[in-house]
Amino acid sequence: MTEAYRSLEWIAPHTLRLLDQRALPFEERWLALTDYHVVAARIADLAVRGAPAIGAAAAYGLALAALHAPDGDLAALRRTLAEAAQTLKAARPTAVNLAWAVERVLSAEAVIGANDGAALQAAALAEAQAIAAEDAAANRRTGQHALALWPAGVGDSPANPLTFIHHCNTGALATVEYGTALGLIRAAHESGRHVFVYVDETRPRLQGARLTAGELKRLGIPFAVIVDGASGYVMRTRTVHACVVGADRIAANGDTANKIGTYNLALAAGAHGVPFYVAAPTSTIDLALADGPQIPIEERAAEEITHLAGAPLAAPGAAAFNPAFDVTPAGWIRAIVTEAGIAWPPYTQSLAEAVGRASHE
Amino acid sequence: MTEAYRSLEWIAPHTLRLLDQRALPFEERWLALTDYHVVAARIADLAVRGAPAIGAAAAYGLALAALHAPDGDLAALRRTLAEAAQTLKAARPTAVNLAWAVERVLSAEAVIGANDGAALQAAALAEAQAIAAEDAAANRRTGQHALALWPAGVGDSPANPLTFIHHCNTGALATVEYGTALGLIRAAHESGRHVFVYVDETRPRLQGARLTAGELKRLGIPFAVIVDGASGYVMRTRTVHACVVGADRIAANGDTANKIGTYNLALAAGAHGVPFYVAAPTSTIDLALADGPQIPIEERAAEEITHLAGAPLAAPGAAAFNPAFDVTPAGWIRAIVTEAGIAWPPYTQSLAEAVGRASHE
Repeated sequence: MTEAYRSLEWIAPHTLRLLDQRALPFEERWLALTDYHVVAARIADLAVRGAPAIGAAAAYGLALAALHAPDGDLAALRRTLAEAAQTLKAARPTAVNLAWAVERVLSAEAVIGANDGAALQAAALAEAQAIAAEDAAANRRTGQHALALWPAGVGDSPANPLTFIHHCNTGALATVEYGTALGLIRAAHESGRHVFVYVDETRPRLQGARLTAGELKRLGIPFAVIVDGASGYVMRTRTVHACVVGADRIAANGDTANKIGTYNLALAAGAHGVPFYVAAPTSTIDLALADGPQIPIEERAAEEITHLAGAPLAAPGAAAFNPAFDVTPAGWIRAIVTEAGIAWPPYTQSLAEAVGRASHE
Repeated sequence: MTEAYRSLEWIAPHTLRLLDQRALPFEERWLALTDYHVVAARIADLAVRGAPAIGAAAAYGLALAALHAPDGDLAALRRTLAEAAQTLKAARPTAVNLAWAVERVLSAEAVIGANDGAALQAAALAEAQAIAAEDAAANRRTGQHALALWPAGVGDSPANPLTFIHHCNTGALATVEYGTALGLIRAAHESGRHVFVYVDETRPRLQGARLTAGELKRLGIPFAVIVDGASGYVMRTRTVHACVVGADRIAANGDTANKIGTYNLALAAGAHGVPFYVAAPTSTIDLALADGPQIPIEERAAEEITHLAGAPLAAPGAAAFNPAFDVTPAGWIRAIVTEAGIAWPPYTQSLAEAVGRASHE
């Protein structure tokens, strides 16, 4: 229980193990999945969440679809794979990593070129495993790139910590392992700096209070949970060196969709001159979308706000409006850190270059 | 259960009835208090909250201290009153209405001039009752003044509602009756406009989701609860005509202490050009404090964030930082509405004038 988390793993025979994040941190419950429909359902109901993690889960879902279908009829197997791709991509609308991972498996050379069912099955699994492995490696590189962002002379003692505000969960649980924005914090900590994190609790599902706090505790990084509305007060009255968040989709111009509350944090950071950084793998960049208003924003059930674990939080019969994400315009983002380096404004150029570099690595 | 709420009332024989807001909206539990120590404890533990409401409760607490002490020894009675004043003022630090109400009872002409114990008792009670009655009347006048703020041609149909974002609870429950910021909304509704309210749930204690949603439901005003982090997204993607909040203390220059999350809402309003209004009785204005950084900000227990009704919300052992209020600098506030009219920037002049007008009414 004291190791760093891992969101998912592949085990024999042909099984995806998912850490059920709805039960964390109070219970560590692993789900053993062999049916891609169930993978899609667990993505939709947030047993697994975080853009990179649901990308990897969907890729493994495709592998399951292939491996648990009869391998005798290649054409039938390809139809199954196409159906699974549709089902998995439809599980959630905002994070582009989901569609990206599914398309990557479908378009892998070995998948396209497979001459029989067994080859197709092996190729789908190999591509899913490559996606998972690359995500973990990408996060570590992203954290290393970000070391150049932190001010000198800060973090040399516990009394002078390099101080972050962090929104939602972007750690090992939101990825395959290590983390994106939390990976930045983790890399700073591993580099020997003293670090302190104000953890936005992140309503309505409290990914900050439950998951990020749990990860920081395991990593031995000091932190304090705050309510989401307190970030401006913290920046006004205490020293904060950076706000760091992940991303569910980054448009070509740098506009970034991320967990609801991210935009308010960016506005508060802007008002205080605190740098606001986005950390994400290049698979989160959607060069096909020119800007943020085109990003589809998922609305989830009102009960996520009005109830908690079945118990009412709000006045009986209260209506609620529950967008799961918001879009932070590029102008509020100081830099976007990826495994292919730090992208600076203007993002239309720097993001395209980052995607280009990543695809040639 | 369908009438508008009332936060407290005075009943014979010498009893303060308080509506226990911790149990709302799930249970309507009235507390019958006769001991001022218990009044102070119920203010501290938030059975009664909201700056004007705790002012009135403290004034009644002083009346209880006088009425339940022996009336034979005037000097002893005055000492009891002084002790009660200290205890009540110490119950919570941020809302200035608490000290204001206590001082007003102590310095009332009939209290100072009382020649015997019975006269002192009667005078203390009369002043407390005047404070409660004036607060209700002041709220209604404040709502009327604010009608001049709402844009023409809006609110003529349910499809074109006058739309607010509201933070915390500022309704009948936060006052004696009617409300401050919620009173503005109520007055607009009563004036015949169609109104819609986005209700910040207001973590950590969910006064918005529990209390404001409950009040709006009783008043028949349509609304949707949102998480506190969603206000920027709502202003960016929907039409919002004004953000309205109450106040716990307003410094001479207009800097305003109010429930944590108010400042982030003001920053988001500013980024979208949405007018941000504060509504409060002039008793909330503290001309003795030059500016906001001098306002004491209460820090409450971490458990308000990490637990809900005893159940854990956060990772076990998670630390939390829980300031109950923040300060919104005057520059982010479009106007401050009081019972003595609308105060516009520069506030140093307009607030002093409002206090002057109120004291001559």
